[in-house]
Parts: sequence; structure tokens; C-alpha cells
Amino acid sequence: MSETSLAVLHNLATELRIDSVRSTTEAGSGHPTTCLSAAEIVAALFFSEMRFDPHDPQHPEADRFVLSKGHAAPILYAAWAAAGAFPREDVMKLRTLDSDLEGHPTPRLNFVDVATGSLGQGLCAGVGIALNARRIASDYRTYVLIGDGESAEGSVWEAAQVAAFHNLDNLCGITDVNGYGQSRATQWDRDGEAYASRWRAFGWHTVTIDGHDLKQVLAALAEARGTTGRPTMIVARTLKGKGCSIFEGKDGWHGKTLKKGTETDSALAELRAQLVKTNDPAPIIPMPASRRSEGPLPDFSAKLPTPAYKLGDIVATREAYGTALAALGGIDRRVVALDSDVKNSTFSERFEKLYADRFYQTFIAEQVMVGASMGLAARGAIPFPSSFACFLERASDFIRMAGISNVNVKLAGSHAGVSIGEDGPSQMALEDLAIMRGVPNCTVFYPSDAMSAERLVALAASTPGPVYIRTTRPKTPVLYGPDERFSVGGSKVLRQSADDVATVIAAGVTIDEALKAYDRLKAEGVAIRVIDLYCVQPIDRDGLIAAGRATGGHLITVEDHYANGGIGDAVSEAVWDQGFRVQRLAVREIPRSGPPEVLLDKYGISAKSIVAAVLQGQRSEVKGQR
Amino acid sequence: MSETSLAVLHNLATELRIDSVRSTTEAGSGHPTTCLSAAEIVAALFFSEMRFDPHDPQHPEADRFVLSKGHAAPILYAAWAAAGAFPREDVMKLRTLDSDLEGHPTPRLNFVDVATGSLGQGLCAGVGIALNARRIASDYRTYVLIGDGESAEGSVWEAAQVAAFHNLDNLCGITDVNGYGQSRATQWDRDGEAYASRWRAFGWHTVTIDGHDLKQVLAALAEARGTTGRPTMIVARTLKGKGCSIFEGKDGWHGKTLKKGTETDSALAELRAQLVKTNDPAPIIPMPASRRSEGPLPDFSAKLPTPAYKLGDIVATREAYGTALAALGGIDRRVVALDSDVKNSTFSERFEKLYADRFYQTFIAEQVMVGASMGLAARGAIPFPSSFACFLERASDFIRMAGISNVNVKLAGSHAGVSIGEDGPSQMALEDLAIMRGVPNCTVFYPSDAMSAERLVALAASTPGPVYIRTTRPKTPVLYGPDERFSVGGSKVLRQSADDVATVIAAGVTIDEALKAYDRLKAEGVAIRVIDLYCVQPIDRDGLIAAGRATGGHLITVEDHYANGGIGDAVSEAVWDQGFRVQRLAVREIPRSGPPEVLLDKYGISAKSIVAAVLQGQRSEVKGQR
Repeated sequence: MSETSLAVLHNLATELRIDSVRSTTEAGSGHPTTCLSAAEIVAALFFSEMRFDPHDPQHPEADRFVLSKGHAAPILYAAWAAAGAFPREDVMKLRTLDSDLEGHPTPRLNFVDVATGSLGQGLCAGVGIALNARRIASDYRTYVLIGDGESAEGSVWEAAQVAAFHNLDNLCGITDVNGYGQSRATQWDRDGEAYASRWRAFGWHTVTIDGHDLKQVLAALAEARGTTGRPTMIVARTLKGKGCSIFEGKDGWHGKTLKKGTETDSALAELRAQLVKTNDPAPIIPMPASRRSEGPLPDFSAKLPTPAYKLGDIVATREAYGTALAALGGIDRRVVALDSDVKNSTFSERFEKLYADRFYQTFIAEQVMVGASMGLAARGAIPFPSSFACFLERASDFIRMAGISNVNVKLAGSHAGVSIGEDGPSQMALEDLAIMRGVPNCTVFYPSDAMSAERLVALAASTPGPVYIRTTRPKTPVLYGPDERFSVGGSKVLRQSADDVATVIAAGVTIDEALKAYDRLKAEGVAIRVIDLYCVQPIDRDGLIAAGRATGGHLITVEDHYANGGIGDAVSEAVWDQGFRVQRLAVREIPRSGPPEVLLDKYGISAKSIVAAVLQGQRSEVKGQR
Repeated sequence: MSETSLAVLHNLATELRIDSVRSTTEAGSGHPTTCLSAAEIVAALFFSEMRFDPHDPQHPEADRFVLSKGHAAPILYAAWAAAGAFPREDVMKLRTLDSDLEGHPTPRLNFVDVATGSLGQGLCAGVGIALNARRIASDYRTYVLIGDGESAEGSVWEAAQVAAFHNLDNLCGITDVNGYGQSRATQWDRDGEAYASRWRAFGWHTVTIDGHDLKQVLAALAEARGTTGRPTMIVARTLKGKGCSIFEGKDGWHGKTLKKGTETDSALAELRAQLVKTNDPAPIIPMPASRRSEGPLPDFSAKLPTPAYKLGDIVATREAYGTALAALGGIDRRVVALDSDVKNSTFSERFEKLYADRFYQTFIAEQVMVGASMGLAARGAIPFPSSFACFLERASDFIRMAGISNVNVKLAGSHAGVSIGEDGPSQMALEDLAIMRGVPNCTVFYPSDAMSAERLVALAASTPGPVYIRTTRPKTPVLYGPDERFSVGGSKVLRQSADDVATVIAAGVTIDEALKAYDRLKAEGVAIRVIDLYCVQPIDRDGLIAAGRATGGHLITVEDHYANGGIGDAVSEAVWDQGFRVQRLAVREIPRSGPPEVLLDKYGISAKSIVAAVLQGQRSEVKGQR
């Protein structure tokens, strides 16, 4: 914390307001009013409280600032410019195609850890960033600015409880209580106590202040810094649009910019008149502690102990996941695991047993589990959050933002599909592949046996960006030997001959069904090719095209997933220009409770359905030839 | 509230325990311990507190019970059997394929309003059910039993604030504080005050009790009934597995059943020994108020006032949505709207202006918006929750459960795709079609002009089950006249000739691009067919096949959505057996901020890309013919 004078801070806050108005007017869109309510808070953080290097925003020991109310991006950009990270006039490029100063912040900017703009996510990321400080034994502090409106998001309260449970006294939230959401006043208006009492009930220390009184802002930040054992929430009562009489404290101005010309000019004049004369020295931003590096990442695949399975062993891929995850924990301290109270089902408890200090329990709160993972990943960790695949969907919007953030989050979803059996449809993930494939930069692995599962978990740790690993509840036979290797974008041909009449493409639990179908068809003198599509995204286009060409252009996909957005769609797109027939065997209705094998059969993804599809394809082929 | 004696209630609670143990042992899976902690609560509700008709569970005036901790399904089934809804011995069919007594409750059972089993959703549904009581001016009360573990879900706190904001004193939650989650003790163990203080901070009345003391349970329910102006949360401290010494109060028993034979027999003997002798009369369940019916639904499409657009008018489909929604509100009182503070962007404010009493504000909390809609729909309302399409994804898991519940929820997502422009990727829904199509029974509409938007909104109100309506931010030209009609599973051929070399299939904002491409190609002497796929699910297979056959088997889909799970995949699946080439023009990377038209171009979904695809298809065609 530096000794910047109040007069200097006041002027800096005013300049941040000026730049927020200038840049949004120039862009013709954006949210000036939400910037202006936060000007003193941002000025105090950037020019008095935080230790950071404007020329090295990713310094591992630097204090972190997360703008959870991402629509206030213009003031974030103005602050970094004022700190010297880039030329001030660049703020005028706001929202233009060629600038990284986008409408909402993304890590395309080196001073942004995670993308924000979907409200209620920043504090979850902040929890992860604060956990990371512990992991690397750093005293950097994490500050998260959240809006009063976004406090209605349940994910904020997930973050609240996880931060309190983990006693994150290195985490400080600031709620900008300007009283207005987008379309109306918030439910608590500018009642600071309505916020403070909630945070206290969730175990946080709170300070309620006038967010435009720099003395109070600085004192609150100092109080937060001195609070041990729990995180602090500073509840700052402010005025939306503060400083410009045209919209200060008024409803109906959310997301509206001032008109170019007189309207903007008079607002800027009004702001400039608020600058005070001072001879106090310019702020000196305190530098972070000296840089320590965690070094280059190891080759996780090479270092993974050879899995001890024998061909034909019966092991669940979710169990292999837990085994491999625990092994990765021993290879590098950056590997961490997160659980939402299903560690004994996902087998992530194997990691906890060995590395409890890097195992973070969020309890039954999947949004903060994924959000904290985003924060951890942004600060150099390689987090593996795992849960039932269907419950990861609770965090779909976080996963979307993890894609935009392009962070190293390795999601693992267990209990995929109807093969979970009796627990019924609420526990079955049948849309997770669609959601994860819907993140363009997300690698999607779907191992069918324990050997490939372990290899793919290691590969996930080395693969940049988000990765999804889909595992299965029932035990399945080990198919691969210890020397088999797997790659991003790869697939394996498990059965083939020169006489194959169709290619069956499966993954996970349906591989076993495909192999059974192979045997049954073989007994009838019909040969098929069987491909294990263990990497669903990116997909092995060349391999699929080669197989299709060799098998009469008839591809049959079979997956324990709804038809939409899964393996069938992925394959179909990959081979679109080949004129193949891609026949999708997939679940097509809401399933029921029942024994796994019975459900695979009932929903048309068992060996029986594969055999039928192949034979029917043959019949129409023959018919067509007549 | 009836006058059932404590002795009789005690015995009923004990019988519920017995049936929970018997049925789970027989099934070989399930959660007996989580049933046993709730036995007194369930017995008191079903046999003293609630007014309902066991032979008419859907009676519109009956008190409602939502089992949010859905894994306690066996005790729910036992209670309804004990009340006389079905023969007691049927509980032994638990989790078998032919029984509707699934692992977690679904509305396949007529006494279940919404499917539960994904934790943290029941109270959100309860909010909707309680709001519905107001809508129909009924004094029925809504009870929701939630687990202590699931209280970590942020959605629970979204429900908490919305219930308090709307002063839902007809809503009573009961938290079963048995101290254990799935894999470990909960973060607050059996500390009732940790829960109560949170609920109080969120504006609820609270009562903390011993959940096994029937007198306390009854008194707390009476206190809740007498509390006005706010909802009540009863915090009931219990023991997981209460009544069976083998697992009572012990960790490690979540989701585990007793072994058949001695283990179960001795547990049942232990429970039976807890029955007391009594001559008190059997419970008389109070009947609900007399039945009032809301009557059959009107034909919304027929009653919708003819939209006043002229061909070529420029109107945003999101605005037409608001106009039609307001019109529907005047046609039938069952139509209600929900907003998460974006009503001025989705135009749902037009409904609020006319029908404020049926417009429910959840503030920035999408999970409870969708969850409350599920509850409203389960009780006869036709809810239209709307938000930015990307923020609906926050409620993905609720949407999944809405599909399993098969409720009449009409979701509307605005601001889809890169065409929103400068706000950047965090505000762009590019995966919403994949998510909504991933609900097998969800109808998906994607209007391209204001006329079809209004017609489809009316059609949505009449279409059973979940419906999704995707709207666009920019204004687009009106394409259809007032006499044009639209249907579930339909499409429109906008341009065609005998010489068409390809079919371009578009929807929403890309229709305009397809029509521009048509004009440009026509100028070059190339004819294409253009289809408006306004209904993406179910899809017009026959129409697509006919078009494909007439245009050389070359289908080009163009959508403001990622390639995965959208229009291209839907079309491709529909025509899989035709050997067509389905070429997908779609967004394939994380987009940036920029002007809408520039982004459509940059991401390959503008007229330019369509023209290029058609011409390239022609060139390869010609080449192929050589």
C-alpha cells in the first residue's frame, strides 16, 4: 500500500471517470454509469492498495483484481492505462474489432485473468485465485469488484461459503451498491446493511462505507488486509453515474452512452471541473515480491507410471481417472483437484488422500467448483474439477466462460449416460458432450477402458486450454496394453478387415457393445470395422474418412448420449463432404430407472441395435444394387 | 391440519422408515439413511399438516409437497402409499423398469410436480408453486423438504431471496440437517444456527427444532402457517439413518442399502420394536377446498391479434416476442412472464406493463427464474421466462430437469449469436440451440422476422411441454404477410426454381444473409433454394429431403451459432440416409467485439460465405463430372 495522497487519488478517480465517458461515447455503446460509481474504489485499489507491476501484469506475486461486474470494462481499461500498462489514448479503441479492449474483459488482455461479463462469476474465480496464493505460499491478495445487482446470482453465495470455509483472508470483495440493475432498481436499493448482513451470515467480515469517500475506501481496504481467518466484503454505497449530473443516481441509464457533441462535452467539462489542484507526488505503485517461477511443465504422459492393468481386467474408467489423477499430483504441484462432495464416486478421493493441501472441497456447489478452477488455472495451477457429468452442467455458463477465458481447466464428468442404471434420468448426463463440444477450444476425451482413461488424464494435463474427460460408472474391460499411446485428435481402429461392410464408431461404454456386435456379426459372416473415438474433439477426420471409404460409406455411431451434439454429430460434420451415410444410434427420449444393460438395450445403443443397423444397411444396399 | 395423535404419527413415521428400508434393500440400491432422517417431518406433513386428496394428487387447491432432496424418494413413495394413493406393497417395485417409482421422483407419478434429484432445485420450483397459489387466489400451501448438503447450491439462495422479495408466506421450507453429505460431513455439521442465521439474513422466518420430536415438528409447521409476510424455514436437526443402529448418525452410509437377509431383518426388527401400542384413531387427511377448474386452454394462435407489420418493415424478433407475449397475457390468465432484470432488452416489459400481477421479477438469478417457471407450469400456468439466451445457459441443469419433468415452460432467449456485436463473446449465445435441442421433448423455434416471431410465440403457448424461442438483437426485415401460418415441425421455402444447384437452410438473422446470397447468385445466373427453418426441433425431415433431392444433394446450413449441436447438425441428422452433403456455415472460434455485420462476415456466416460455398460446391460438382 503506497502513500498516495487523497487529492491525487481523487484526481485519478476523476480521470478514470473522464476516460470511461470518453471511450464509451466514442464506441457508441457500453456502460459509463456503472464505471462511474466505482471510480474511487478502482482508484484506491490501483493507486494505493495493490502491489503490481503494470508492465508485467502476470507477475506471479502480484495482487490480483477481478472485475466481476465486467460491463464496467471501460474503467478497468482506464485504470491499467493510467497505471502505465498501455498508452492512455488507446482507451478510445474500446469495442473496435482490432482492439483487445472488448465490450467485456477477456484474457486476450494480459491484465485480465478470467473473462467476465456473465455476472456472478468473478468472485468464484477470485476464490480460486486466492486458493492459488496458498498453493504457491504467496502473500498476494485478491480483490474482486462485484455489482449489487449481480449479488442475486446464486453462484455469488456459493463463492461466499467456499471462501469462508477455506478461511480465505487473502480475499477481499467490494460490492458496488449503486442501487440499480439493468432494468430497474435492485431489490435492496442502496441499503448497505441488506448486503452486509448476508455476508456476515455467510461468515465474512464486512465493512460498510460510502464508496465515494476515498478515506473510507482506504480504511476499509486496510481493515480487510488486517482481518485474519476470514474473507472481507466491503459494502460500498455509491451512486450510479456519479459525477455527471445528467445521469448521477438516475434509473434508465444502464448500458446507455452519452451522445457525441454537447451531451458528452458538458459531462466531460463537469468532470474536469472536479479535478483539484495539488502538488502532491504522483502515485508510486508498490511492486510485488520478487518473481519466482514454477518452471516449465513436465511431460505428464511420459512421467505417468505405467498403469498396472491387464487386458480383460474389469475396471471403471472413473476409477482409473482417480488413480491417474493421484499419480499426476505426484508429478507436479501445479496439479490440483476440486470436488463438490462426490469424491467417492468420481474417485478424486485418491488424490485427496495423498495431496490434501491441493484438494479443494466446494461441497454441493458446482458453479464455484468450476469458477474457482478458472481462477486457479489463470494463476498457473492445473485444476481437475470433477463431479457427476450431469451436475457439471450446473456450471454450463462457467464452462462457456472458461472457453472464452481459454484457461487450463480439466473437467471430469463421471456417471455419463443411461449406463448408470437405477438412479434414473436426473443422474444421467446425456447432453454433456453437446455442451463441452460447444466450447470451440475444448478438447473432449471419452475413454472406453481404464488404460486409455489413465493415459488421457495425463494427456489432459499437458493439453493447453479446457479439456473435458467423460467417464463411465460401470466397470468395463481393459482393451489396451501398456504400450498403447493416445493423442489429441486420435482414434483407434479396434477391428478391421478388407470385407468390412460398415464402420461402427463408439466410445466409452458403447465400445463393449460394438465389440459384441462385431462378434455376433462375424458369426453370421458379416465383417465390420470398429473405431474407438476416444477423442471426440478435435476429431480424427482423416481416420474416419478412410474408414468410411473402405466400408461402403456407411458409418454407424453409437453413444450413451442424446443424438444431439454428440459423437454422431461430430462424426457427421467431420465427413460432411464425403456423401457418407452417418447413422446415429443414440438415446432419443427421457430414460427411466432400470438395470444398465436393460437400459442400453431399451434405448437402442446396445450390441443388438448395432447388429440390426448393420444388417439393415446391408439389406438396403442390396436392394439399392438391384 | 388434522388432529392425528402423536402416538399415531410416531407409528406412521416408523412405518415410513420400515418401507424405506424394505424397498431399498429389495432394489439393491438407493438411499435409506436420508429417508430415515426425515421420517417425522414427512409423517407430520402428510398425516397432520397438509390438506390433499390422495386419490387426486393434482387437485388444484391441494397443499403441495416438493421433495427437493430427491434421493429420499423411497420415503416419498412410502408416504403416498400410506396415504392411500397406491397399494403399500408397490413400494417394493422401487427402481424397477416397469414401475414409475424411479430412483428419483419424476412427474410420471401423478403426485410429483417436478422431477428432483439434481439438488438445489426443489425450492426454486416451490417458489413457482407458491406464486401460482397467488395467481389462482388459492390458499394452498407449499412445503419443500431440502437437504442440508444441498443448501450449498447457489440456486437455493436464489430461491431464498425471490421468495422473500415476493413475501411468499404460503411457502414453508424444511431443512433436514442430518449432518452428512455424500462423501463426508457437511460444512456445518448439525449446527442448526449456521443454517437459521443464513435464512434469517435472507429475509425468512426461521424455527430451529429437533426434527425427530414430532411435537416440535408440528409446532413449527403451525408457526409457519401463522407467519405472515415472509416464508418460513424450519431447520430440523436430525440423525441420518435414524432408528437403525447400524447406520444411525454414522458417516459412510450415504447411498448404501442394507444387505438382504440378517442385516435388513435385524434393522426391520429394530424399527418394528419402536412401534407403540395405541387406540388413537387413524389419521384423517383434510381435503382441499372445492375444486375449481381453469377450463380448457384457448387456441392462442387463433386468438392472437393479427400482427400489424408490413412486408419490409424492420423489426427485431425480440421486440415482436414482447408484443406477442403481452397479447397472450390478454388471452388467458394462465400466461405469466418471468424476468431476470433484462425486461427492457427482451421486451418482456410489455407484458409487465399490462399484467404486473403475473409478471415475476427474480432479479439477476436465472436458475430460480427457470426453476420457478417449472413450479408454475406444474400447477397449470404457462410461464414465459426470458433472458439473454447466453444467460439462460446459467440454468442449463434446470432446463434439463424441466425436460425430465416435461413441464410447459416456454423459454425465450434473446441476443443470440455474434449479431449482438460490440458487447463481445460473454454476451453471445452460440451454444443455446445445442443445449435446448439436447432436451429431447423440447420444441425449438427460431423466428427470422417479426411476423413469424409473433406467430411462433402464440404457437409456443399451445404446444405441450418445454419450448424454446430464440430471438435476435438486431432488427430484421419482415418477410411474411399476415396470412402466413407456421407449425411445429414446419419450414418455409422462401426461394426456389427448377434450376436450384443447392439448398441454403437458415434461420433467424442468417435468413437475411441467405436472401442476399440468393440475389447475388441470381445476378451471376446461379439459382439456389432458400429455406427458413423456423422450427429447428422437431425438424421438417420431408421438406429437407425434398429440397436436397431437387438441388443436387447439396445442403448448406448457415447459423449464428457454433457448428456443434445447431441447425447444421439437426439438418444433417434428419437427412442422414440420403447421402447428401450437408455443409455447415457456423461460428467456429471464440468471437470478438465488433459491429454485427462485420462479425457475421468475419465468422463466415454472411451472404459472402454462402455465395462462396455455393460456387465452390458448383466447381467441385463440375470437376466431379469430368
